[in-house]
Amino acid sequence: MLEKEVHIEIINTGTELLLGNTQNTHGGWFGRELFRLGLRVARQITVPDGDAIEHALLESIHRSDVVIVTGGLGPTSDDLTREATAKVLGLELIEDEAAMRSIEEFFAKRNKVMAASNSKQAQAPVGADVLPNGNGTAPGVYVPPRLNALRPCAVFLLPGPPRELYPMFYQEVEPRLRALAGVNADRDMIELKFTGVGESDFHQGIDAQLAAIDGLEYGYCARISEVDLRLIGGKNATEQGKKIALSSFSRFLVSENGDSLEATVVKLLQEKKFTLALAESCTGGMISSRITDVPGSSAVFTHGWVTYTNEAKIDMLGVKADSLATHGAVSEQVAQQMAEGALRVSGGDLAASVTGIAGPSGGTPDKPVGTAWLAVARKNLPTISEKIFQPRDRNGFKKGASQAVLDLIRRVITEQM
Amino acid sequence: MLEKEVHIEIINTGTELLLGNTQNTHGGWFGRELFRLGLRVARQITVPDGDAIEHALLESIHRSDVVIVTGGLGPTSDDLTREATAKVLGLELIEDEAAMRSIEEFFAKRNKVMAASNSKQAQAPVGADVLPNGNGTAPGVYVPPRLNALRPCAVFLLPGPPRELYPMFYQEVEPRLRALAGVNADRDMIELKFTGVGESDFHQGIDAQLAAIDGLEYGYCARISEVDLRLIGGKNATEQGKKIALSSFSRFLVSENGDSLEATVVKLLQEKKFTLALAESCTGGMISSRITDVPGSSAVFTHGWVTYTNEAKIDMLGVKADSLATHGAVSEQVAQQMAEGALRVSGGDLAASVTGIAGPSGGTPDKPVGTAWLAVARKNLPTISEKIFQPRDRNGFKKGASQAVLDLIRRVITEQM
Repeated sequence: MLEKEVHIEIINTGTELLLGNTQNTHGGWFGRELFRLGLRVARQITVPDGDAIEHALLESIHRSDVVIVTGGLGPTSDDLTREATAKVLGLELIEDEAAMRSIEEFFAKRNKVMAASNSKQAQAPVGADVLPNGNGTAPGVYVPPRLNALRPCAVFLLPGPPRELYPMFYQEVEPRLRALAGVNADRDMIELKFTGVGESDFHQGIDAQLAAIDGLEYGYCARISEVDLRLIGGKNATEQGKKIALSSFSRFLVSENGDSLEATVVKLLQEKKFTLALAESCTGGMISSRITDVPGSSAVFTHGWVTYTNEAKIDMLGVKADSLATHGAVSEQVAQQMAEGALRVSGGDLAASVTGIAGPSGGTPDKPVGTAWLAVARKNLPTISEKIFQPRDRNGFKKGASQAVLDLIRRVITEQM
Repeated sequence: MLEKEVHIEIINTGTELLLGNTQNTHGGWFGRELFRLGLRVARQITVPDGDAIEHALLESIHRSDVVIVTGGLGPTSDDLTREATAKVLGLELIEDEAAMRSIEEFFAKRNKVMAASNSKQAQAPVGADVLPNGNGTAPGVYVPPRLNALRPCAVFLLPGPPRELYPMFYQEVEPRLRALAGVNADRDMIELKFTGVGESDFHQGIDAQLAAIDGLEYGYCARISEVDLRLIGGKNATEQGKKIALSSFSRFLVSENGDSLEATVVKLLQEKKFTLALAESCTGGMISSRITDVPGSSAVFTHGWVTYTNEAKIDMLGVKADSLATHGAVSEQVAQQMAEGALRVSGGDLAASVTGIAGPSGGTPDKPVGTAWLAVARKNLPTISEKIFQPRDRNGFKKGASQAVLDLIRRVITEQM
C-alpha cells in the first residue's frame, strides 16, 4: 500500500508543554487520527516557543513527505511558526485579505476591539492556502509540496488549542492528506467498544481470523475494564472484521460508534422509558457522576445515594442491621437490600447498588481489598446480583467497580445476563 | 546561572506512543522534575521502536549536554535502545554480572523461569554505570560524558514504565544530574495550591514583587478553578516568595504540599472531628466521588444524596414543594433546604449542597447555563449560601461547581468566609 510509506512528522511548539504545565495530548491524538487514514506518525517532536521551531522544521522537512506543526500562530512575539516556516522555505509572508476580514469579524462578533498585534495572524507564505479557523483568530496554513524548494514535502501549520485544531484537521487537513497520500476514499473505520472482556481474550479468540482478512488493519486499545477494537480498511474488510468480533463477543459490546458505557446506559434507559436509581458505597458517587456526565441523563436518573457508613445504609435505604451484623457490609444480602431499598424509595423501574472494599485498608483474608458485590433491583422482577474481585489502587478500583455496575445495568436492560 | 545553560533532550521510544494507544506522559513529567532542579527540557522527541532511535540519538547528542532516553530496554527484538547507543557511541556491549544476578533474582522471587531473551537486559556499554531497577527486569544505563567520543554529552537509558522509571530517576539520575549541572544542593521548591482566585490576579497582584526576589524562579499552572504557584531557588528566596504570596492570597490557599482540595477538606474534617453529608444536584455525585478518592474519607463522609429531580429533593431531603414552585430548583432557598435536610437526616456536623444548571439545555435569561447555588448547613449555626456563575461545557461546569462547594466547606471549617 502506498499510504504506508508516507513519512509524516509532527512538531508541537509550546514552552508550557516542555515545562510540563500542560500535558501534550497532540502526539497521541494525531497518532489515532492518522491511523484511521492508514497513516503513521514517524516522529513527534516538542520544541519551546521561539527560534527552536526553525531548526526542528528544517530537519523534519529533510526526512518527511508531510510535516504538521501545531502552535505558535498566536499574536505575541513568541509566536514564530509562520515566520520560521517562511524563512526555512524561502517564501515571503504576505497578508491574506480573507483571513484579515475573518479575524476582524471574530472580534466584532464578540464586541471586542482587535489588538494591532492580531493583524500578523492574517499573514501567510505567498501561494500557500490559508485554512479558515471557525473557533479562534489564528488561521492555519497549508504549503503544498510544489511550493517547497527544499524537497517535495507538504507543510501544515495548525493552531495549538484542541477546540481550534480538531475541527480544522477534519475540514481542511484530512481531505488534503487523503489526496496527497492516495488514501482510498472508501476507506472505512469501525470502532467497537467492549467491556467485561480482556484484550488477551481477543488475541486468543479472533486475532488469527482478523489477520486473515485481506486489506484489514486492526488494533486494540485497552483501559480499565474496557477494550476498543479498531477495524480499518475497505468497507467489505471492516464489515467482515466486525462480524467476526461480534460472533464471539457481542454480549460484551458497549457501542459501535465510540459512545461511552454511561452514554449507552442512558440511551437504553431512554429507549425503554426506564428510570434509574443508584445506591453506591465503595464507588462513592462515581457511578452517579459518570451517568450525569451524559447530556439528557436528568430525564432518566432520578435518585442517588452514597452510603459509606452502616448507619447510612440502614437510615437511607432500609438495609437490615441484622444482615450487616451477620453477613457484613460487603455481602450479597446487603447489596440486594441496598438496591431494593433504592427502588422502593425512588418508585422507579431499576435501581443498582454496589458495596465493596476500595482499600488501601479494610481488607480481610475472607474479603480482600478489591472485593465488591453488585445488585440490580427491578420493578416486579427478581433482583440480580454479582460479585467482582478487582484488586487495584483506590481510584482504579472505583473505576473498575463503576464499570461493572454500569455493565450489569446494560445487560439487565438488554436481557443478556 | 550555570544550570540554565544545560541543554537537555528527552527521547521517548515506543510505537504505541505514536499510534496514540498510550498517552505519552513522560514529556510533561520530565519537564516538571527538571524544572524542580532548575533545568529545562530543550526538546522532546518520540520515535517508534526499532532503528529510528539510532538516528534520533545521534542528532540529540550533537545538540545536547544531556540526553535521556526512555523505553526500548525490554527483552524483545524490538527493544534496541542499548544496541543503538553502543553503536552510536562506538562502545562494545558487555554483560554486567550484578545486573544479571539481579534479573535472575527478580524471576526467582516470583517463582518464574527467566526466558533466555532476558539475559540481553544485563548488557551495558563498556565502562558505563548500570542503574539498578527495583521494580522490573530492565536495569538503566548511564554513560558519563568522558566515555562519549563524539561530544562531552551524558546519556541516560531508562525504562519506559512509570513505576520503574520514576524511582530510578529519583535514586540514580537526579544525583548525577545535580553533579553534572552544578545544581545547588540547598535548592528548594515550594508548591502552593490556590482556589477561588485566577492566574491573572497573581500576575497583577504579586508578579512584580516575586520577580524582584534575587535567585527565585517561579511559575504558575492553572486548571479549572485552581492555580498552582511553584517557587524554586535557595531556601531564603522561596520562603520570601511564599510570604509575599500568602500576604495577598492566604484566604485562597488549599495546600502547601501539593495536596488536592478534597484531601485538604478530608484532613480538616478529621482534625475537627466533624462529619460531612453531601446533597448534590447539578454535580451529579462528583463531589462525593472526589471526597471518596481520599483514603480515610470513610471516617468523615457519612451520607450522600444525588437529587436530580424535584421529587427526589422533596422525598429525600424534605425540600418544600412550595419553594420549588416559587423560587425554582436553582435558588438560594432550595440550596439551603437541601443542605439543612441533609444535615437533619445525617445527624452530623456539616452538610453541603449544590443546585445549578449544567447545560447544554435548561438555561433561562434569568438563570443561564452555568448558574448554581451552594449552601453549607452547620449544627447549631446558621446556614451559609453562595451563588456562582461558571458557563462552561457540562463536565467543566461539574468540576468548577464541585470545586466551589469543596472550597466553601474548607472556608466554613477554617472560618474564612
